[in-house]
Amino acid sequence: MSVPKAAGIISKPSKPELAGILPDLLKWLEDHEYKVVIDRETSSFISGRAAVEREEVTRHRLDYVIVLGGDGTLLSAARVVAKAGVPILGVNLGTLGFLTEVPATDLFAALEAVHQGRYEVDSRSLVHCELIRDGKAAGSYDALNDVIVNKVSIARLASLDLHIDGKFVSNYKADGMIIATPTGSTAYSLAAGGPILMPSVEAFVVNPVSPHSLTHRALVVQDSSEIVICVSMDHEEAYLSIDGQVGMPLKNGDRVVCRKSEHHVKLLRIGKTFFDVLRTKLKWGQR
Amino acid sequence: MSVPKAAGIISKPSKPELAGILPDLLKWLEDHEYKVVIDRETSSFISGRAAVEREEVTRHRLDYVIVLGGDGTLLSAARVVAKAGVPILGVNLGTLGFLTEVPATDLFAALEAVHQGRYEVDSRSLVHCELIRDGKAAGSYDALNDVIVNKVSIARLASLDLHIDGKFVSNYKADGMIIATPTGSTAYSLAAGGPILMPSVEAFVVNPVSPHSLTHRALVVQDSSEIVICVSMDHEEAYLSIDGQVGMPLKNGDRVVCRKSEHHVKLLRIGKTFFDVLRTKLKWGQR
Amino acid sequence: MSVPKAAGIISKPSKPELAGILPDLLKWLEDHEYKVVIDRETSSFISGRAAVEREEVTRHRLDYVIVLGGDGTLLSAARVVAKAGVPILGVNLGTLGFLTEVPATDLFAALEAVHQGRYEVDSRSLVHCELIRDGKAAGSYDALNDVIVNKVSIARLASLDLHIDGKFVSNYKADGMIIATPTGSTAYSLAAGGPILMPSVEAFVVNPVSPHSLTHRALVVQDSSEIVICVSMDHEEAYLSIDGQVGMPLKNGDRVVCRKSEHHVKLLRIGKTFFDVLRTKLKWGQR
Amino acid sequence: MSVPKAAGIISKPSKPELAGILPDLLKWLEDHEYKVVIDRETSSFISGRAAVEREEVTRHRLDYVIVLGGDGTLLSAARVVAKAGVPILGVNLGTLGFLTEVPATDLFAALEAVHQGRYEVDSRSLVHCELIRDGKAAGSYDALNDVIVNKVSIARLASLDLHIDGKFVSNYKADGMIIATPTGSTAYSLAAGGPILMPSVEAFVVNPVSPHSLTHRALVVQDSSEIVICVSMDHEEAYLSIDGQVGMPLKNGDRVVCRKSEHHVKLLRIGKTFFDVLRTKLKWGQR
Repeated sequence: MSVPKAAGIISKPSKPELAGILPDLLKWLEDHEYKVVIDRETSSFISGRAAVEREEVTRHRLDYVIVLGGDGTLLSAARVVAKAGVPILGVNLGTLGFLTEVPATDLFAALEAVHQGRYEVDSRSLVHCELIRDGKAAGSYDALNDVIVNKVSIARLASLDLHIDGKFVSNYKADGMIIATPTGSTAYSLAAGGPILMPSVEAFVVNPVSPHSLTHRALVVQDSSEIVICVSMDHEEAYLSIDGQVGMPLKNGDRVVCRKSEHHVKLLRIGKTFFDVLRTKLKWGQR
Repeated sequence: MSVPKAAGIISKPSKPELAGILPDLLKWLEDHEYKVVIDRETSSFISGRAAVEREEVTRHRLDYVIVLGGDGTLLSAARVVAKAGVPILGVNLGTLGFLTEVPATDLFAALEAVHQGRYEVDSRSLVHCELIRDGKAAGSYDALNDVIVNKVSIARLASLDLHIDGKFVSNYKADGMIIATPTGSTAYSLAAGGPILMPSVEAFVVNPVSPHSLTHRALVVQDSSEIVICVSMDHEEAYLSIDGQVGMPLKNGDRVVCRKSEHHVKLLRIGKTFFDVLRTKLKWGQR
Repeated sequence: MSVPKAAGIISKPSKPELAGILPDLLKWLEDHEYKVVIDRETSSFISGRAAVEREEVTRHRLDYVIVLGGDGTLLSAARVVAKAGVPILGVNLGTLGFLTEVPATDLFAALEAVHQGRYEVDSRSLVHCELIRDGKAAGSYDALNDVIVNKVSIARLASLDLHIDGKFVSNYKADGMIIATPTGSTAYSLAAGGPILMPSVEAFVVNPVSPHSLTHRALVVQDSSEIVICVSMDHEEAYLSIDGQVGMPLKNGDRVVCRKSEHHVKLLRIGKTFFDVLRTKLKWGQR
Repeated sequence: MSVPKAAGIISKPSKPELAGILPDLLKWLEDHEYKVVIDRETSSFISGRAAVEREEVTRHRLDYVIVLGGDGTLLSAARVVAKAGVPILGVNLGTLGFLTEVPATDLFAALEAVHQGRYEVDSRSLVHCELIRDGKAAGSYDALNDVIVNKVSIARLASLDLHIDGKFVSNYKADGMIIATPTGSTAYSLAAGGPILMPSVEAFVVNPVSPHSLTHRALVVQDSSEIVICVSMDHEEAYLSIDGQVGMPLKNGDRVVCRKSEHHVKLLRIGKTFFDVLRTKLKWGQR
């Protein structure tokens, strides 16, 4: 990416703060002679502008996409934008996020930095997940954070069989199982006791949630592996979630097959290191 | 309890093994001049015997109740039997349980021991839970293991406010919250990272499941306290479980009020200490 | 304790901040007609005043002792003051402590509150520890936080046998073992994965440090129990620490016998609940 | 490695079991026309044989080295053998090890398998560690499991600064810090709460031991990184350990610099997968 001249904007739905930010943002982009493509959410805060569906934003040739919201907005935008290979500048309207590290107050300094080429591109792997039911593909998803198989509320435990590269690992009796990317290692998997993977580690975390067997621990698996979770529950059901946002019920015998996605999410980073974000978000060095 | 002369039998549903055990068990009890009351499950394996509903077994004056099954059967039987104050002899048809420590192969040795007065009575506290909705009592339960408030499958997180003795403790963003008795401290709470409470400790464990905040830890609270969990979730719902067996959906604003129950479960123990059971079940001393 | 009229002062060694605080503190106490006893550390910051050894402070009849320092100062002062049954007001010269909850800036408000009787007395249990070597008592200590048996640096693992009330629990291969009071449950034991015990729980935590066996967990034991750790290491040695402050080497066969102490530490509390302190120190409710 | 024709033998000191095994082992090797080189420990159990120092065994051209002992013996042998690039067949005289997966009872079946080419070579990375004191190299080591910086017994906490690839990560107040290879992820790091890395993951685990800050977690770092631990302790000292076997005291200002070693340890594997070993050693699938 050279000096950018075309930018997209994707906004979090129903955030009144956007009304105060968007006019200035658009003015800045136009003053700097950017072509701008906005999604419907964004257009609801500014009048007299053409907008496209979020999925269409990257149909145009763009140098980068500005995502205004929080980590949740970026996760859902990323699943769309990754396929187009367009980098994302994540702007946080609330508190600092792991993914959206630019606070709204630093928006224009960040735009200036990107405009002047003072940025790094942080490439994040995605996990691709295919649901196999009755021997047939029944769904296919990319996740930036994680693929999760959980018990449903009324079930006491999920019973899941794990295979890696065709080899049986173990049966797990647990609340669920997380397959997390390095990006997702600081999300739900961290809450479930998992390790933090630096973004450059070429691996996934396979982390059981509240396993019945106390010796089951998070496994770190190279991301060239095929990781398969088989639902092995006679009477009850489980549930599949993608980035905690998209979900569907699972049945006995369903197989969730995870591999590295062919896509990546490119995040624009200005100044802050991964460790800066960790220290701030996790309050390291304070007790 | 002096030398017993009346015994009840409660059985796990649909266990074919019972057909082999029950005739000998009944013969032993009658040879030793016990009066015997059996529940419907038990009667399905032996012909020509009057049976009562499980809830009616303790309507008769009994010295103790034999529960044939596993820990799950004992948990559900205990909620019925505790109110009558009758001790339980738990017989495990499968592997050793935390609660049903007598294996089927030792059944007659155990009966003999109880008959001769060679036993201890292990009194276990129960947690009583009242569900308050719209200011009114909407449900009331006793749990031998635990009271659990969990997010439902499609929710990303539960948001729960904890109060102890009228004082605000914290808001928790988590998969759920467990209130466990000492007995329940070796069940789900252990899988969720909690400590093991010896049965004689007069306390409950208040243990968040996969809390978003990494500094939230299991709290041990004296059992004379009132522990209140308030559901604080706008758009989504939570779920209440009693011993992982009885459940109901919760709504925003619902309050789950936990106190020590006025009842206890009395377990007959023959020989084994609490530590013997821990060592065997948790394979302590082996790696 | 009625309205107090005699106070002691114990100070942390070598804290220059004390020079700014002590004259005003002494003036306030004398203006309010308190008799004042100070220790040597305190006297080093103010001229012309008689002082006594720290151990002698409570030889005088005192209503309470002001401890100026941090949690470490309070821990060492508490071991002296507890025997006399005199309450402690902990004043923190640095950041908020778990034990020293009054910041220096609130010192005079706190003195006023105590003077007017607006305080609560929070009674904290101590663990008494006796070291038995070759069948003879070789040392005897009271700990407010914890008794710790650790491997020495060059050892790979400690091998320790745990007995509770004369019953064998397990052998532990670990870095060490912590016996913590409820007060100590928020100190080293918390870092080693232990639960938080509310101060009123009548129990101790028995918590192995980095146990080799993954199923070993923190045990919560009623504080009327006798907890014995036997060092079982042929070639190497272990180390006993009291509140992380007093220590001595241990040898194979040594027995560390822990019981509830006959003494208590009384902390004066003004306003803040235990949960207020937890929320602030552990940043609960923030991620 | 084609069909092997020269083998070394390295034995654990003082294991009487060796007297029963060695004559048959030597006979088997000679019957199959192997040239055999043995170390001094091995020779102490059989008379009339030339032996060399353990460090000299790989001076001869060898197809593989048989290590008789446990994981500890293999760890110390590996540091010698890795430099020569010779594969190791680990034979366990006691219980199954993570590294020495062939039990003594299967020794001859394993020799036969290797002789017939039915084996896999499992290449394990080593972490290289350099100690820098006063700006000068003061020691240099290769570890197959881990490099550990620990507080000494009398210290309350270690204070350590972590830098990765020249960037500051955090200060840690902890019992210590572990840098583990994937091989070492199932050793001490696992006891300290770390994840399990499959041997093929090109990463190290950086895992604090009992960190004071509850949000410090195991970090997984790509193994092309430079990981530096700086000792930052004024009055007290720390201790450096290599595989829990070699150690030396550290002083304030010392820097422990870890990188991937240029050497690898090659383990001969016959039949068992990594998951087979995990399931057996960690009793997965059992509670």
